[in-house]
Amino acid sequence: MNFAVIGAGAWGTAMAIHLSNMGHTVTLVPRRFEQALALSSSRENVDYLPGVPLPPSLQVGHELVPVLMEAEVVLLACPAQALRATATKVREALGLATALKLVLSLAKGLEVDTHLRPAEVIRAVLPDYPAGSLTGPTNAEEVARGLPAAMVLAADAPQALLESVQTEISGASLRVYTSTDVAGAEFGGCLKNIYAIAAGICDGLKLGDNTRAAMLTRALAEMVRVGQALGAQAETFYGLSGFGDLVATCHGGWSRNRQFGEQIGAGAKVVDLMAHRKTVVEGYKTTAAFYGLCQDRGIEAPILAEVYHTLYDGKVAAKALRDLMLRELKQE
Amino acid sequence: MNFAVIGAGAWGTAMAIHLSNMGHTVTLVPRRFEQALALSSSRENVDYLPGVPLPPSLQVGHELVPVLMEAEVVLLACPAQALRATATKVREALGLATALKLVLSLAKGLEVDTHLRPAEVIRAVLPDYPAGSLTGPTNAEEVARGLPAAMVLAADAPQALLESVQTEISGASLRVYTSTDVAGAEFGGCLKNIYAIAAGICDGLKLGDNTRAAMLTRALAEMVRVGQALGAQAETFYGLSGFGDLVATCHGGWSRNRQFGEQIGAGAKVVDLMAHRKTVVEGYKTTAAFYGLCQDRGIEAPILAEVYHTLYDGKVAAKALRDLMLRELKQE
Repeated sequence: MNFAVIGAGAWGTAMAIHLSNMGHTVTLVPRRFEQALALSSSRENVDYLPGVPLPPSLQVGHELVPVLMEAEVVLLACPAQALRATATKVREALGLATALKLVLSLAKGLEVDTHLRPAEVIRAVLPDYPAGSLTGPTNAEEVARGLPAAMVLAADAPQALLESVQTEISGASLRVYTSTDVAGAEFGGCLKNIYAIAAGICDGLKLGDNTRAAMLTRALAEMVRVGQALGAQAETFYGLSGFGDLVATCHGGWSRNRQFGEQIGAGAKVVDLMAHRKTVVEGYKTTAAFYGLCQDRGIEAPILAEVYHTLYDGKVAAKALRDLMLRELKQE
Repeated sequence: MNFAVIGAGAWGTAMAIHLSNMGHTVTLVPRRFEQALALSSSRENVDYLPGVPLPPSLQVGHELVPVLMEAEVVLLACPAQALRATATKVREALGLATALKLVLSLAKGLEVDTHLRPAEVIRAVLPDYPAGSLTGPTNAEEVARGLPAAMVLAADAPQALLESVQTEISGASLRVYTSTDVAGAEFGGCLKNIYAIAAGICDGLKLGDNTRAAMLTRALAEMVRVGQALGAQAETFYGLSGFGDLVATCHGGWSRNRQFGEQIGAGAKVVDLMAHRKTVVEGYKTTAAFYGLCQDRGIEAPILAEVYHTLYDGKVAAKALRDLMLRELKQE
């Protein structure tokens, strides 16, 4: 199958390497020209996925028009806030494309201004193509190195198409499961970034594993409640895109969202942390988007609200966590 | 309230310290006389909870008869396989007891020979008293040090009694939630030890966070399926005693079950590991108990089965995990 991966951060690069190793025709298209040049010459993504050579068969491209002429599946591997612009570039370059069947997002975040999920953003820009997300607990470096992983392919697409893409992406190391609950799969990926910040805050405050586990237990319940109120299915959040991604992110030393939370818990100022970043912390803006969405719809989400107040209103992290933990005794 | 804690491992000692710090009258009764002597003289549980002094008000006892004369709540803090013997000792020493209202287990395991849960073992020995479990994500040292935690009190007892004990045990740092799904709360605590061994095996095999997250996602689903088939409620497993304890145990560097699995994953022989232990790995025997129970009842539990074959049939851990991960593609 012919894949185009637009965006060459750690995760886009890792998926391109995986698909290329599976024997597919893959073009990785970095968003910046200089990055395309650097990847072409060094055959390694030194900035975002150092130490993993690009397979010889993996093509690095820059011009979208020729890449899209043959692409059957496009993976948009950019931050959530750049998804609309990236999808728009794809639309503008589609002139000669005839093979394209499916557009998938690898982003885990809501668009701040519109509160739209990735598949909704893609559909708004590219209404003629089935759209969805490839999501789940997938540390990029582990996937690039071929360690076993499992993820979810959720798209509003005919079942036969879903199954054929599932089969093409799946290999001995990466198992792909399909889901038609696109909302649930995408909300899970977005929300877990927010709760990963909360878990990081617990870590930064040195509150221990018990506190973190208690907080995460309530986070899972909150994720289900928020997701259901927004039209997703509860069961989805107990699967790879919800629970699975939550435990991987909150456990993994590599999670940017968790680390960001840990620094805040340890006393760093949000404004300072945001000023010196090279990579995107998806949970930061997604917290604002989800907070707005829950306010609009009257959905109760106390953990999300405390993370929001910590990130945007200058609330002291220890106070936010105390307000969260000290609630009335009740039946579980 | 007057509490007796029978058994002075890490967790019994930690609960006794917590209850004593709450202002209750607490007697900690180690199972061995020498241990009672050592705790009385050093005022510290050097073997199992070093570095945390016993509060001056915490009494250390050895003779059960006088302790039980005034005890209102008895906490049995012994390994699951010692629960029947410990409850029997309590029964034999109850002659003058008039205040006893509730007997709670702190153990997380099934009795191997009978497949009974802790509350069922207690009820079999002490049929005249309400019985239950105090369970959830509670690393002993963190509780002893007063770090925030939350747990579940599940008992077949009148609601008023449950709520009064809940109020007495809860404090600013330890929040107790009540549940009437005793089966669910106890199965969650037992099963998570098995899945913690599986998570440890992933760690020992150096398979990464993605593999572990995928395995744990299936473990949660298996926990729910097994628990429901045995009469528990699905929701309970998404709470503190299921999900919460699972993430704490699988994350915590301190979990004996996870460490045990990690050593097996790294190539250690089960027989060697069992020969040199001072503390009990509850998951080891509970795996055999649950495997037998699932065989008896025809309940499908592939992760549990692979852990069983690894621990008891000499199956190579890497092979067990590969058999688990390589299953047919399907909808999630």
